[in-house]
Order: sequence, then C-alpha cells, then structure tokens
Amino acid sequence: MTAETRITAEPGTPFITITREFDAPRELVFRAYSEPDLIARWLGPRGLKMTIDHFDVRAGGGYRYVHTDEDGNAYAFHGVFHGTPSVADGIVQTFEFEGTPGHACLERMTFEERDGRTVIHQRSVFESVADRDGMVETGMESGVNDSMERLDEVLADLAARG
Amino acid sequence: MTAETRITAEPGTPFITITREFDAPRELVFRAYSEPDLIARWLGPRGLKMTIDHFDVRAGGGYRYVHTDEDGNAYAFHGVFHGTPSVADGIVQTFEFEGTPGHACLERMTFEERDGRTVIHQRSVFESVADRDGMVETGMESGVNDSMERLDEVLADLAARG
Repeated sequence: MTAETRITAEPGTPFITITREFDAPRELVFRAYSEPDLIARWLGPRGLKMTIDHFDVRAGGGYRYVHTDEDGNAYAFHGVFHGTPSVADGIVQTFEFEGTPGHACLERMTFEERDGRTVIHQRSVFESVADRDGMVETGMESGVNDSMERLDEVLADLAARG
Repeated sequence: MTAETRITAEPGTPFITITREFDAPRELVFRAYSEPDLIARWLGPRGLKMTIDHFDVRAGGGYRYVHTDEDGNAYAFHGVFHGTPSVADGIVQTFEFEGTPGHACLERMTFEERDGRTVIHQRSVFESVADRDGMVETGMESGVNDSMERLDEVLADLAARG
C-alpha cells in the first residue's frame, strides 16, 4: 500500500503544490531533506545518476546537484535557502534548472506531524503562469512520483536501522 | 517634469509590477543597479541611512543592506542573484526582509531601451497572495516612489559628469 502523491497546478496561477504522507516521524523526514548522503538516495527520477556538488541546508546556504542519464546527458540544478531551515518551520529555497538560467522558482516545504506520520507539503511559485505551465509540461510528475517513492524507501530503511 | 512610477498589484494574484521611464541609456541604468557605490545613493526611502554590507551583482552572487532611521531602528534586507545579470537580460534576484525571515520574493528587473531612454520593468512574485497583500499594506509605495526619484537624480548626475 503506497501513499498517493498529490500534485496540484490550478489553471491561471503560478503555483504548484505537492502533498504526500509518510509513515515516519517528521524529525526523520527532515533528516532525509537536509543530509546530503540521504538526499542523494531519493531526490530525482529513478535511473539517473545523482551527483551532489554541495547541499548545505542552513540559513544562507545553498545547493547544487547534477542528474546524469545513461547517455551522459547532464541536468544541473541549484538554489539557495531563505530563513533558517528547521523541522518546525520547514525549508524555503530557490530552485533553478541550469538549462534555463535565470528562470527560478521559490519553494516552501513544510513537515506536518499527524499521529507519528508526516505529511509533506511543498508549494512552489514561479515567476509567471507561463513559467509554471512550462514546468508542468516537462513531465515533472513522474520525477516527483519517483522521488516520493524513493524517499519512502529511504525512510523505511532508516526506521529499520533504528 | 518627473516621470510617473506605476505600481500594479492585481487582486487575487501574488504579483507586484513596477514600471518607470528614465531619461538615460540602459547601460547607465544597469550601472546604477549593479555598482554598490551607486546603489547606495538611490535604493530605499529618503531619510534613512543606507549601509551596504555586500552587493555582488553577478551569477551566484548575493547582497545585503541595512536601512537605519534617525531613532536607530535598523531594517536589513538580503537576497541572491539567479542567472547572469546583464543589460540585455536584466537582473533576477530574491528579496527577503530580515524582520520576516524565510518570507522571500523573487524579482526580475528588465531594462527596455526606448529611443535613448530606458523603461525599467520590475516584476515581483510572492509565495502567496496573502504575502503579496502584506507587502502592499506595509506602505511600500512611498519607498518605491522615493527610490525611483532618487535614481532619476543619480542618473542625471552621472550624465552631467559624462
């Protein structure tokens, strides 16, 4: 029984929201979002090689990573954190695909505790409705679904190790 | 004869747009937006002391500055640049008032040449309509108007010096 990942993109708005429930306490989920070794195990579609350049989840920090497919095509992403990332307040970051430089979005992830389980809420805002629509049309949905399933597996593994 | 600063905040959207025409070529306007010594002369409301911590207008760079009023109250702001700032492509940056940490917005400034004059277009997107409404309610309008008038004066001074 796998939890459902809900992706919403209301027509005419610049927003995308993603929600997904995990069978893990939110401290563990936050660890999976803030420790580079763990992030490398779930962030991105299956089948791509993940290379983290840096991932420094703190006030004033930033991140950069590269996904490489089996043909050697590389897709790099980077951004910075705003505010102080924490379990209670969540994570606010920018996100830029380096293939479209200067087109960034602003994302907020929050971790809602629900009876020992955790609901992740991610809300992204783009510079324009057109930019948002462009992101939806890249087929981001399968990448998001892969990431959330892989995160489920990482959390189960962490829980099993105690 | 002073040009008009137009500030638009369509109800129900997370956007604020600002447009203003200047009697200066866009290379000069871009200099005023990218050289810290010049930025210090126009950015912010009149009557506040402007202290630039750093202002590094380049790909991967960031900025931080502090406005201090005559009672010693300090208001600090910071952000980072996305993409490569340039005359042709404009400037994309984040903007956070440190009094509300983690509440950032994403801004794009472009410099449109029009017969030797320059129209600045600034478009900001906030995380939510509520955040955008909050910014409008701070009375940002007079600060924006001051900044644009002061920029006019800086540009006239630069032009006079050749």
